[in-house]
Amino acid sequence: MKPVKVGICGLGTVGSGTFNVLKRNAEEIARRAGRGIEVAQIAQRRSNPKCDTGTTPITSDVFALVDNPDIDIIVELIGGYTVARELVMRAIENGKHVVTANKALIAVHGNEIFAKAREKGVIVAFEASVAGGIPVIKALREGLAANRINWVAGIINGTGNFILTEMREKGRAFEDVLKEAQALGYAEADPTFDVEGIDAAHKLTILASIAFGIPLQFDKAYTEGIAQLTTADVGYAEALGYRIKHLGVARSTAQGIELRVHPTLIPADRLIANVNGVMNAVMVNGDAAGSTLFYGAGAGMEPTASAVVADLVDVVRAMTSDPENRVPHLAFQPDALSDHPVLPIEACESAYYLRIQAKDHPGVLAQVASILSERGINIESIMQKEAEEHDGLVPMILLTHRVLEQHISGAIEALEALSDVIGPVVRIRVEHLN
Amino acid sequence: MKPVKVGICGLGTVGSGTFNVLKRNAEEIARRAGRGIEVAQIAQRRSNPKCDTGTTPITSDVFALVDNPDIDIIVELIGGYTVARELVMRAIENGKHVVTANKALIAVHGNEIFAKAREKGVIVAFEASVAGGIPVIKALREGLAANRINWVAGIINGTGNFILTEMREKGRAFEDVLKEAQALGYAEADPTFDVEGIDAAHKLTILASIAFGIPLQFDKAYTEGIAQLTTADVGYAEALGYRIKHLGVARSTAQGIELRVHPTLIPADRLIANVNGVMNAVMVNGDAAGSTLFYGAGAGMEPTASAVVADLVDVVRAMTSDPENRVPHLAFQPDALSDHPVLPIEACESAYYLRIQAKDHPGVLAQVASILSERGINIESIMQKEAEEHDGLVPMILLTHRVLEQHISGAIEALEALSDVIGPVVRIRVEHLN
Repeated sequence: MKPVKVGICGLGTVGSGTFNVLKRNAEEIARRAGRGIEVAQIAQRRSNPKCDTGTTPITSDVFALVDNPDIDIIVELIGGYTVARELVMRAIENGKHVVTANKALIAVHGNEIFAKAREKGVIVAFEASVAGGIPVIKALREGLAANRINWVAGIINGTGNFILTEMREKGRAFEDVLKEAQALGYAEADPTFDVEGIDAAHKLTILASIAFGIPLQFDKAYTEGIAQLTTADVGYAEALGYRIKHLGVARSTAQGIELRVHPTLIPADRLIANVNGVMNAVMVNGDAAGSTLFYGAGAGMEPTASAVVADLVDVVRAMTSDPENRVPHLAFQPDALSDHPVLPIEACESAYYLRIQAKDHPGVLAQVASILSERGINIESIMQKEAEEHDGLVPMILLTHRVLEQHISGAIEALEALSDVIGPVVRIRVEHLN
Repeated sequence: MKPVKVGICGLGTVGSGTFNVLKRNAEEIARRAGRGIEVAQIAQRRSNPKCDTGTTPITSDVFALVDNPDIDIIVELIGGYTVARELVMRAIENGKHVVTANKALIAVHGNEIFAKAREKGVIVAFEASVAGGIPVIKALREGLAANRINWVAGIINGTGNFILTEMREKGRAFEDVLKEAQALGYAEADPTFDVEGIDAAHKLTILASIAFGIPLQFDKAYTEGIAQLTTADVGYAEALGYRIKHLGVARSTAQGIELRVHPTLIPADRLIANVNGVMNAVMVNGDAAGSTLFYGAGAGMEPTASAVVADLVDVVRAMTSDPENRVPHLAFQPDALSDHPVLPIEACESAYYLRIQAKDHPGVLAQVASILSERGINIESIMQKEAEEHDGLVPMILLTHRVLEQHISGAIEALEALSDVIGPVVRIRVEHLN
């Protein structure tokens, strides 16, 4: 069979990785796919001196590529929402299949993109948009198709995980590690997307949709960053047998879908608590399979290219099939998506780590315990440290049983109003991930 | 669309799990697959009082089911090589697709089965044959399709991993834990398949074929069991920073394919070294994705059913497509399989843990070091314990760098011939899994 012709839009890190993998493993890929995959044209705004594109035709106009009648599949790797959205919509309009690594685009404009793709009978594949080289979208959408998914929990931002790993292993402060991560190229000059959880929320939004069969609803995701985390809390968590990870959690409950990214205490003996450095991992809990975990490099040139090229092979196989029999974009048939609502954070349920700075008075613990018990909050364990010398304050650390966020918020307000409690109460969610 | 009709052969643990998952999640599965999956008939030799099959027609003749013209897909869950092989071949001959959880059947008769399936244009799906609820065959065959796979390493027998976990955590002896595993139902009355590595070798044979695109060659797999492992070695490994796991390793080298199951020291900080109890995990190293890991329940009623039903959904989607565009049974096109040979164990390369019981004489270490260096074996580290009181022998533990098995075998022969070395030298392979 003659090779399938692919156009690559964007020749940055992932674009050049994709070009290189397609070239280096061309024979291996053809042995699998049954036909070759040929890069027919590349669109790039700036040339990439690190990528030897040989005789492959290059254009600076991404739209020329999308309009090229010889090209069957467009690989969108330019990132962002604006040009990328226009490009993908026009590619679909032109009847071309699309492979993208763009999590922001899918999380924010995915519903519109998939509706248009359905109308035109084309495939939009996006394995590379979540967790780089880990084929977790395929696992969730196909491998676990027998299951009613209960929850998904993932370390899906390598930068954040690198920072937390360094904080724990070396007792370093957040700001200090962030600067190193920027110097190493793990973190952007503006680290907001990574450390504030926005990047993770994009990915979690996608995972939640394919896990539960709901439309993409990035605007309803709750995000809380790791910039406020102190080495003190990292240390206390460790002493209690937990690790702190920046976790994306999507859970299906009778009331609705929880969709939240925040620092999270996880028992240290869980496999996912031991995922360190820039590595990613996603846990999925299904009613039949139980808990599974998928681990690997969540970013980087070739791991992400691995996902892009796997999508290309999938598209090559599926492009001649009846669109009705393809794997649906969001795992569930478009007319069978659920309107189960995404819950506001106050309606989410979790266990909690609370750190209270209290004056070293008798009776403080009784006051604290009473505020919690009035709101039906059960204490799982408590750790009271020695008074710190410089201020005479006692850090009191509590772990609670699972409770609605709104009850904890009310309790924290009441705790902070106590005259013996000084400064804000630190609240970190706890997930046991059984 | 009208439901696809499925016949289940065998209503044991996995059979009843499959029936239950299809019934319980019928709506969820139809929302995904776009059509229902209906169990039209069940064949069982003995009735299973634990499974309420309602009004589903039952026959005691598995071949009646295979010849039933109303049935599109046969689910083979009777196990074994004999009747199962006949059943599957006849189902294919009758133009039916097959889903099976039978690792022995695929590892031993897969080449013949897939050739016949190709001839008849039907699909034989076997995700459930390896690592139960973990969709690792899909990950390797599709999710990592961009990669040249370097190696696969897996904990793929839950019974063995349960025994090793208990030995390490509680210092218990092999025989003692085996008896408990039998009482708990984790191990069969005849535990040979599990503890001697035969079951793991069946699964590894399958993983190796789809990783490297080679025909199934179970007869060439090297297997070594865990029955000889002592708590002493488990403890020494721990002291050196390693865990002992019963690992299946398949590695592609310039000379050929290594295919081996044996006890293995793994650095304790590797994620896979922390996979405990009956859980399974498979690591895959590809040239683009790097190392990925897939973890979950490797056996059990519903985890295995999860894989069977996911295969059913895949078959439902692919059955109407052009057979040439389907995912090939062994990941690579049948005419593009490789004849890269499977290596005998003597030609495999590994690092080694050696335990030598020596008389407490000066000069023994020099003799040992000289034997190793003559054969080009470099020592990575050495640990010499105090003489044990009862016999005055000194356990000397060596970790070597990577070397061909034949050189280690030669060295061990020479070491055992030393007059100061008493009894056999213990040899356990070491894999760093970077």
